Amino acid sequence: MRAVTFQAPGVVSVEDRPEPEPIDPEDAVVRIEATGVCGSDLHIYHGRVQIDPGFTIGHEYVGTIVAAGDAVTRVAVGDRVLGCFQTACGTCFFCRRGDYHRCLQSRTFGHGATLGSLQGTQAEMALVPRANLVLRRVPEGMSSDAALFAGDVMGTGFHAVEASGLRPGDIAAVLGLGPVGLCAVQVARAAGAAHVFAIDTVPERLRMAESFGAESLHLGEQDVRAIVRAATEDRGVDVCIDAVGDPKVLETAIRLTRACGSIQCIGVYAERADVHMGLLWLKSLTLRGGQANVIGHVDRVLAMMAAGVLDPSPLVTHHMTLEQAPEAYAVYDRREALKIVLTP
Amino acid sequence: MRAVTFQAPGVVSVEDRPEPEPIDPEDAVVRIEATGVCGSDLHIYHGRVQIDPGFTIGHEYVGTIVAAGDAVTRVAVGDRVLGCFQTACGTCFFCRRGDYHRCLQSRTFGHGATLGSLQGTQAEMALVPRANLVLRRVPEGMSSDAALFAGDVMGTGFHAVEASGLRPGDIAAVLGLGPVGLCAVQVARAAGAAHVFAIDTVPERLRMAESFGAESLHLGEQDVRAIVRAATEDRGVDVCIDAVGDPKVLETAIRLTRACGSIQCIGVYAERADVHMGLLWLKSLTLRGGQANVIGHVDRVLAMMAAGVLDPSPLVTHHMTLEQAPEAYAVYDRREALKIVLTP
Amino acid sequence: MRAVTFQAPGVVSVEDRPEPEPIDPEDAVVRIEATGVCGSDLHIYHGRVQIDPGFTIGHEYVGTIVAAGDAVTRVAVGDRVLGCFQTACGTCFFCRRGDYHRCLQSRTFGHGATLGSLQGTQAEMALVPRANLVLRRVPEGMSSDAALFAGDVMGTGFHAVEASGLRPGDIAAVLGLGPVGLCAVQVARAAGAAHVFAIDTVPERLRMAESFGAESLHLGEQDVRAIVRAATEDRGVDVCIDAVGDPKVLETAIRLTRACGSIQCIGVYAERADVHMGLLWLKSLTLRGGQANVIGHVDRVLAMMAAGVLDPSPLVTHHMTLEQAPEAYAVYDRREALKIVLTP
Amino acid sequence: MRAVTFQAPGVVSVEDRPEPEPIDPEDAVVRIEATGVCGSDLHIYHGRVQIDPGFTIGHEYVGTIVAAGDAVTRVAVGDRVLGCFQTACGTCFFCRRGDYHRCLQSRTFGHGATLGSLQGTQAEMALVPRANLVLRRVPEGMSSDAALFAGDVMGTGFHAVEASGLRPGDIAAVLGLGPVGLCAVQVARAAGAAHVFAIDTVPERLRMAESFGAESLHLGEQDVRAIVRAATEDRGVDVCIDAVGDPKVLETAIRLTRACGSIQCIGVYAERADVHMGLLWLKSLTLRGGQANVIGHVDRVLAMMAAGVLDPSPLVTHHMTLEQAPEAYAVYDRREALKIVLTP
Repeated sequence: MRAVTFQAPGVVSVEDRPEPEPIDPEDAVVRIEATGVCGSDLHIYHGRVQIDPGFTIGHEYVGTIVAAGDAVTRVAVGDRVLGCFQTACGTCFFCRRGDYHRCLQSRTFGHGATLGSLQGTQAEMALVPRANLVLRRVPEGMSSDAALFAGDVMGTGFHAVEASGLRPGDIAAVLGLGPVGLCAVQVARAAGAAHVFAIDTVPERLRMAESFGAESLHLGEQDVRAIVRAATEDRGVDVCIDAVGDPKVLETAIRLTRACGSIQCIGVYAERADVHMGLLWLKSLTLRGGQANVIGHVDRVLAMMAAGVLDPSPLVTHHMTLEQAPEAYAVYDRREALKIVLTP
Repeated sequence: MRAVTFQAPGVVSVEDRPEPEPIDPEDAVVRIEATGVCGSDLHIYHGRVQIDPGFTIGHEYVGTIVAAGDAVTRVAVGDRVLGCFQTACGTCFFCRRGDYHRCLQSRTFGHGATLGSLQGTQAEMALVPRANLVLRRVPEGMSSDAALFAGDVMGTGFHAVEASGLRPGDIAAVLGLGPVGLCAVQVARAAGAAHVFAIDTVPERLRMAESFGAESLHLGEQDVRAIVRAATEDRGVDVCIDAVGDPKVLETAIRLTRACGSIQCIGVYAERADVHMGLLWLKSLTLRGGQANVIGHVDRVLAMMAAGVLDPSPLVTHHMTLEQAPEAYAVYDRREALKIVLTP
Repeated sequence: MRAVTFQAPGVVSVEDRPEPEPIDPEDAVVRIEATGVCGSDLHIYHGRVQIDPGFTIGHEYVGTIVAAGDAVTRVAVGDRVLGCFQTACGTCFFCRRGDYHRCLQSRTFGHGATLGSLQGTQAEMALVPRANLVLRRVPEGMSSDAALFAGDVMGTGFHAVEASGLRPGDIAAVLGLGPVGLCAVQVARAAGAAHVFAIDTVPERLRMAESFGAESLHLGEQDVRAIVRAATEDRGVDVCIDAVGDPKVLETAIRLTRACGSIQCIGVYAERADVHMGLLWLKSLTLRGGQANVIGHVDRVLAMMAAGVLDPSPLVTHHMTLEQAPEAYAVYDRREALKIVLTP
Repeated sequence: MRAVTFQAPGVVSVEDRPEPEPIDPEDAVVRIEATGVCGSDLHIYHGRVQIDPGFTIGHEYVGTIVAAGDAVTRVAVGDRVLGCFQTACGTCFFCRRGDYHRCLQSRTFGHGATLGSLQGTQAEMALVPRANLVLRRVPEGMSSDAALFAGDVMGTGFHAVEASGLRPGDIAAVLGLGPVGLCAVQVARAAGAAHVFAIDTVPERLRMAESFGAESLHLGEQDVRAIVRAATEDRGVDVCIDAVGDPKVLETAIRLTRACGSIQCIGVYAERADVHMGLLWLKSLTLRGGQANVIGHVDRVLAMMAAGVLDPSPLVTHHMTLEQAPEAYAVYDRREALKIVLTP
């Protein structure tokens, strides 16, 4: 089969690879119908994730099950499915608490040896361990463009809002309107936010956020703090989602959020940072970080997408073939696309 | 001033009454702009609430503050305000826990001596105690038709959904599509329900629920249980709102709700009932009852209404003058109206 | 091996049975060190559970793993373990939400075909499916008398308190002081209840509850409602645990619980009941029922037992051999014992 | 009357002041029976809080109401009461959400113009605004030594544990064993922590924590991280309370806490800090800061103290007279005391 593989920083290629077969009773093999290129793939592309040359990459996928081990009971051969970007064992300390994203045996598709040596999904076929937890049937009539968001980007936007503690009638701000931020805007609106401020500097992204029901604010050109204060009787927003992962954004979040409010850092932090703890303390803020619990949320995300309450399809800006993957990565690296969907 | 007063079961009249003046420092006097006729008013009209002849009735209201005591600081003379249907002291055991609906000194407008001897709001003016907690400014541009729902019917629908524990992506059922049930349908959708079953027997109400985004089910003509099971992989709905208050409806709710789900009885129960405790136990259900905590929720209800996420105005089927109150009660008693708004 | 088997209502016998062997990769075989006789076993003994003659009964157990399938990774051959009374798949709708007690494939030990045809643990050896979720290592130094409570009776007492929503500083009442009620008393105290009323009619049980830190009340001889009201400024208790499962007890619970309080029915209801819905509604109560989520709680239960914060060992009133099982059931049936531990 | 007043950094004196009288209907006047010297008083003593010379200081107090305005209904003249260290209006945005510590009109006793110009309680008498929310009756038989903790230090320890989300059976760590940290140790144990690590460098404080049921760890002399990891299967503690307010302590907290765990910063942060956001993110931690919501918790704190579940009296190391205040401050400044109680 054909598969997109990492070769060196800035170089991916499409190569022949042996077709996967189920080994463990909980394994399934999925014939890929569509697979996405995601911001995390760029970390690999840029050489920031340690990964062996020739490793298959990608972790967003929709397809049909063509083989399954004996213990796969929640889905079956022939089912059209979507998958989560990582696996979970279902029985460790963290899985038992529903924190599937912290599973002690979790493996992430297409991220090399550091995240479990699980070949990626930008290929004609993919081996999916723990298929009972990782795969879900695609609701009837849902396009593959939409479905592949459920197990990754929309699941992450959903997690950001859920973990923020947003309640119906609250006012939210989303800082950073990449695909995750834009999904978070949709989820916040769908979950009952009375108002969502969507904050970025890229006009197209601001416009898309507006189309999702947010009030867009241009971080450089508008006085964001003054506008938020004017709209909240000087208090600030109830919850703030940092979809960037940058200390300056966190500083803005701390300033925009009202006393006793909550800040959810869904954007990745990898370093130490200068944090205004004095202000955080004075305002009695709650700050949460970390990766999304996609497996824990995927049922409800899918239900909302099937109902049309959430719809990520406007984020798909490019369709390309699997063979065009090298070009797709170059396009994505130039930030010319929000989401590229590859079809084998 | 003119005021609608209870005279005898089935008889209300419009009479002259002295204008109220603030006595306590926390009192305000509101010149009424619009006041609603509500299902609870019918309990009085039917003589089921003990109330002295001549007592002014009504508890839904929008107007302008014309006088206020020294301790009224959250609103001011000249403000256009809406009010909650009951008062709360803000300092008793229950208020300190945010359970304003259980305030030990709570008084309900227009319900006679048993609920605090507080004259009603179907009048040209009304005295509002505890104005800091009871009144809120009407958001700019909001019609009085909409605003008077915030402190009563929409607040009750909001409470039903909030207390049910509905989460985004859940499936809900609302049993009984009177004004409260219809508001609950709107709130459930706005709070992220992936699907709402709206169940009743009156075609107009079913149609209105459809227009609010629900799937309507006719209780007599359709096999409600079969339809719900088919839509939920045989499980039943995540949350069920009983907006009637009848043992048969509760039985249906217990049968429609999935294991570990929740039933919220917002419809009034006043008697003993035969409850299928065996089924409730087997299914590990949670059953909650009781009046709405309108004061606790009014800020968020108003924010959602101001944002257009909630809009009760389609429920207003009749506009009449205060002087027409006797006719309004007769119309409402014949169930020809969902909401009648009276204007002095 | 020897095993206690149901023969007919009122008749159990100890018979030879083939030793179990692991079949599924997630199976383990446990050599039993101690196994309890429980109130649920009496339902079988009385013929109220449909079960084939010759079926091995029992579901409380401590022992050592002597064989395990390939997928058993959380425990290992040679480990001294305790087990939960039921199994869970870890991947169904309910397991994914942490509601292991409602697992769609759950099997209960020793309850015949209706609960999954899983042979019981009152035997020299037991087959344990889904061992990763069902078994836990016994903390060092913990007696088998104590350990076998973690997966059944203490787990149930813990669930009752946890699900009741008790918070530190709250006042609780426990109605019914069988083993589960007495464990609930311990858990309520350990979880920070400022005061626990322990209510029953059996003097020994009342004394034991006192020794666990509760104030005991004799239901027939004392004016329970007056005492509770006097201790709570007339409000009633914050949470009430019904550890009986009887409509009269539920009526008492509804009367003893304060407005906005919560009632947790851990005692089994199998029938319809006359419930004072009017009072439940007027008081805005929350009523929850159902079996315990023992798998979901067992880690924390064990941690508290290992720390000595919980200690069920005083409940063990009788030690007997497996061969004495017929006598043990007769003793238990005469209500002469709180907990009988059998050793093979 | 006599009162302890701030004069200059390092200088307090006892002076004559006019007796207070109730002005507002919600005011009460309390004749002080006992008043504490607290860590926050040292901030004033050191000149770090802007406060006019001659201002009366102190905010921990027990006494008897000698006068009260018309609107004071929850307590009465003649009641022996304790008070919270700050006031709350009961009607602003934050009070309506139960966040009394963030009240928009909150005033703190004895902290000068920046915190509401409210004279302190280290005096023979004190004026207490908003008496319905601020004062509580002292439970019968409770010593003044114990009672004055409820409205300040024990209330803060309680808040730290409550806000941390600790659940029964969890493992906690408390970093910093000043009075607040020691109270947090007591609360964590009383709320069901299976194990509490109490971490500091002062031997007497470590010993006292041991006497409260914690395992004490000497931060300099023991390998705290290794010990915690060994006790938690390498995971770290479920919740960690930073009772110091120092970036190094926060770093330790981030390292000691398990993935998906929570850190509660009850120690004061006033500055920017270098925070290991990368680790916080990787571990999916929740970080909360801020002052305690003492008014929101005081009922339950008092109930636990009245039941003997919490007992702060061992923390009182010194009793002195009001006239000895200058000496008391000098003793406290030399860190020779945990809690000094002054009696007029």
